[in-house]
Amino acid sequence: MDFSQELLEKRQIVDDILINYMASSACKYDQIIYEAMAYSLMAGGKRVRPILMLTAYGISGGQNIKEVEAFMAAMEMIHTYSLIHDDLPAMDDDDYRRGILTCHKKFGEDIAILAGDALLNHAYEIMIKASMNGATSLVAKALLAMKEIGTAAGTQGMIGGQVVDMLDKSNIDLDIIEYIHLHKTSAIIEASLTAGAYLGGASVEEVERFRVIGRCIGLAFQIQDDILDITSTTEELGKQVGSDHKNGKATYVTLKGLEASKKEVANLMDQASEELQQIKGDQKEFLNAFILYLSNRKK
Amino acid sequence: MDFSQELLEKRQIVDDILINYMASSACKYDQIIYEAMAYSLMAGGKRVRPILMLTAYGISGGQNIKEVEAFMAAMEMIHTYSLIHDDLPAMDDDDYRRGILTCHKKFGEDIAILAGDALLNHAYEIMIKASMNGATSLVAKALLAMKEIGTAAGTQGMIGGQVVDMLDKSNIDLDIIEYIHLHKTSAIIEASLTAGAYLGGASVEEVERFRVIGRCIGLAFQIQDDILDITSTTEELGKQVGSDHKNGKATYVTLKGLEASKKEVANLMDQASEELQQIKGDQKEFLNAFILYLSNRKK
Repeated sequence: MDFSQELLEKRQIVDDILINYMASSACKYDQIIYEAMAYSLMAGGKRVRPILMLTAYGISGGQNIKEVEAFMAAMEMIHTYSLIHDDLPAMDDDDYRRGILTCHKKFGEDIAILAGDALLNHAYEIMIKASMNGATSLVAKALLAMKEIGTAAGTQGMIGGQVVDMLDKSNIDLDIIEYIHLHKTSAIIEASLTAGAYLGGASVEEVERFRVIGRCIGLAFQIQDDILDITSTTEELGKQVGSDHKNGKATYVTLKGLEASKKEVANLMDQASEELQQIKGDQKEFLNAFILYLSNRKK
Repeated sequence: MDFSQELLEKRQIVDDILINYMASSACKYDQIIYEAMAYSLMAGGKRVRPILMLTAYGISGGQNIKEVEAFMAAMEMIHTYSLIHDDLPAMDDDDYRRGILTCHKKFGEDIAILAGDALLNHAYEIMIKASMNGATSLVAKALLAMKEIGTAAGTQGMIGGQVVDMLDKSNIDLDIIEYIHLHKTSAIIEASLTAGAYLGGASVEEVERFRVIGRCIGLAFQIQDDILDITSTTEELGKQVGSDHKNGKATYVTLKGLEASKKEVANLMDQASEELQQIKGDQKEFLNAFILYLSNRKK
């Protein structure tokens, strides 16, 4: 397996699906909202979440990508909406993302708020429609997948993590940092895997193994972020190195130390790989390589 | 039937359902998002949309409120999220709604954006969970109801209307005003009725009659708003009379004239009543009275 080649191919598959599932305007007045949605959705994300979903779907026995593609698109739309709203002046106030203007800098704050709302709503619209098309057994799986995604996107998942990330951090401790990472990042990674697994026909036991894998990947990914903030060169990282550290923002690394953090990432990736070994199915090689890729990244 | 008494009772039923379906925090860090969601959700709305849904459900033969209440709660949460985001500084920039501080004035802009997001997401979470609990036939009806609500809340409905309402209005004409009213207001009113009708067991033909009724009610409601902006006293209206007119904002009334507008409201209400007569079922008396109540309101 040529991992890099396969990753590129899967990204292209996701991009094609996204274009296919984008909303399109039926009237002359509202073009701008569709432009704003597409601008952020197609701004060159790594497509980690839909690729994970497709991979879990395949490992779990799924053989028809049509069964999962609406959910893959929905997940990337939910991820994109969260980025648009996070970038707003009232939140992180970022002017650029992935080298281009953020949605509100390009289209104005009002349209950016609405574009985020619209992507979130559209994600559910396409999942609901996809759930209506299948046989009864597929409907049940689709509802389980939607429940995973909905819970992970809500107050018990991503929004809950974002709320805590917005609060005053003067008394931050490791417990809070883990809470933020697990809710803001891991929850959606977990749901990408569990939703894909349900749709592919996994047993509840296997779904729970995917959940553990997602938890490990998400947490390791964020700790790796904190490590890179200290160790990487600015050139490698593409943003100011040590920016969190210099801002006085406590991170996993500043609280626990560099060596212990690196060890924690290694432990989490080992745990993810062990869980994956317990799951029956083919196509596990790609997910194993993907886990390594995410944890070894330099930016 | 004592209409006012019945209306009050139904409002109480909706309020009880909303409290029941509100999200609650499971951790010590994120309390504020639940506070903000509940603050706006329980700020004394008229509960028009869930009451319409319950009424359509009953007319269509539904007899177990448990089948519809998650969808009633979801609809009011979607309505509330749209108000929170509409009130933001980047949108209408309102400090007060229903006599109390708007969500962002009370909790800050960041929390208000997230509270809106959370209410929208939570609406889908509770509908998905409700859809999973029923028998197969109920699952099919629940998916139809969710599709109605999802489409009405999205770019082809409420968000589409809001986008156009945000754009430059220097060249506004009657076509655009109708577009805004039909998308920003009518779509959600329509979906309240059609979702309730589907859940209650209505035929597709009857669902389409409810859609016409919703379209008429929504449009009449908004034209009545424009009429009140010209004719009402400030005391009656609870806001500055003629504010739209004085702001130079074209309205249905300024473009079409007061008498023609009043006639249009009367026509729309007649059309709604005629459609209602074509629908089989009991409990139509309350919906008829409700239609009259909405069109005759003085504030």
